[in-house]
Amino acid sequence: MADTIIGRKHWAIAEGYIPAWSHGPEPEMASHETACLLNTSNEDAQVELTIFFKDRDPAGPYRVTVPARRTLHLRFNNLTDPEPIPKGVDYACTIDSDIPIVVQHTRLDSRQAETALITTVAFPGD
Amino acid sequence: MADTIIGRKHWAIAEGYIPAWSHGPEPEMASHETACLLNTSNEDAQVELTIFFKDRDPAGPYRVTVPARRTLHLRFNNLTDPEPIPKGVDYACTIDSDIPIVVQHTRLDSRQAETALITTVAFPGD
Amino acid sequence: MADTIIGRKHWAIAEGYIPAWSHGPEPEMASHETACLLNTSNEDAQVELTIFFKDRDPAGPYRVTVPARRTLHLRFNNLTDPEPIPKGVDYACTIDSDIPIVVQHTRLDSRQAETALITTVAFPGD
Amino acid sequence: MADTIIGRKHWAIAEGYIPAWSHGPEPEMASHETACLLNTSNEDAQVELTIFFKDRDPAGPYRVTVPARRTLHLRFNNLTDPEPIPKGVDYACTIDSDIPIVVQHTRLDSRQAETALITTVAFPGD
Repeated sequence: MADTIIGRKHWAIAEGYIPAWSHGPEPEMASHETACLLNTSNEDAQVELTIFFKDRDPAGPYRVTVPARRTLHLRFNNLTDPEPIPKGVDYACTIDSDIPIVVQHTRLDSRQAETALITTVAFPGD
Repeated sequence: MADTIIGRKHWAIAEGYIPAWSHGPEPEMASHETACLLNTSNEDAQVELTIFFKDRDPAGPYRVTVPARRTLHLRFNNLTDPEPIPKGVDYACTIDSDIPIVVQHTRLDSRQAETALITTVAFPGD
Repeated sequence: MADTIIGRKHWAIAEGYIPAWSHGPEPEMASHETACLLNTSNEDAQVELTIFFKDRDPAGPYRVTVPARRTLHLRFNNLTDPEPIPKGVDYACTIDSDIPIVVQHTRLDSRQAETALITTVAFPGD
Repeated sequence: MADTIIGRKHWAIAEGYIPAWSHGPEPEMASHETACLLNTSNEDAQVELTIFFKDRDPAGPYRVTVPARRTLHLRFNNLTDPEPIPKGVDYACTIDSDIPIVVQHTRLDSRQAETALITTVAFPGD
């Protein structure tokens, strides 16, 4: 049963926000936002992310590969090409893959002394 | 692939509650509840929110526009027309748009010294 | 657009757990688990909850009414008929309604000095 | 209505991470990650989990049974056969069952003094 391919090609995360400051030891406790990508197939997935903002045109595409039968937990903080994502700014994103993948969104917010965590499966397109 | 339109026209958030007090620097750390709206299309989205309560008739519609290829992170705390949403009261809401959008719900609760955060993609109607 | 009926008749929450102790002022900060039910229709919804356990037969049905165009944030802690739900025990539940509703699950855990919150839309059946 | 069978046979959790340290009394407050499995049917469910990593082949299958009309809150920390899941490492998983079940994912992170909790319904395959 482990060979089942599961997922969708198009996903969206409407809530994006990289907190502007952190507490606690790096890198585990740095405030960050992550798109967890899972590719259960036997082919590599070519993935493009587009970042949407409140008051400017979208940025991207950001391109990543998720190898066959691997997961990639991608920190938005680390995206630099074509441009970094500013901290403390509302954003959203779409994730488009050439083969089905699964996408889950997580944020660790350590702006105060204790950690706050959120997660949700991203919205799958049809 | 970035031109894909993703989303639905009708959404619901069953869990609504604006905490009645806060700790920490404003505005980042004020207790608040947000509907994150993403419009990936090339047209503006005309959106109506209706607020449901436990023991009175619904309030609204509240009208907002999400411009083409933009995201709007709407704080329920800031809604005033036709009436503000009371704090410390259970509510729920529906979000209806004339074109497909994606909706995610987030709450930051700073009633105690440390932040608590929740998020989930809203429920998409058929 | 506000008259749209949204939801499903059958829902499940696989993660249930009422923390066994609390910190902070009652009732807001008591550890609790909530099923947020939203009925956007013009008819009352008759709802039945069934509670599943690890090592005993299910409990229920628990019966509640969600009035037309109202939301009910139901604390599992407050269910007593046919029997209370024990604290500190793993459970799960199904929610069955005679008309479509929307269900979201939330827990406030105040076992430690600061609040932890979780939420997710429940799983909608077909 | 309580006899409704609800769920899917194939599920995925893209975000997996067992925090490498903990604060607070064991076992409730140990950092852990849980797959909550609900079987509402009258037959036992035979379930296989496969764990995906960033840079090695998947592990598994891990086999568990969810008895008829029972819930099992399975801690990933406790999986040992065929191999334990390392702490502090990004992973993801698929859950495949021979009959429909419901899957919800939860993590309790007590790396700092106060608890952080996250939950989401897993992604259901078609």
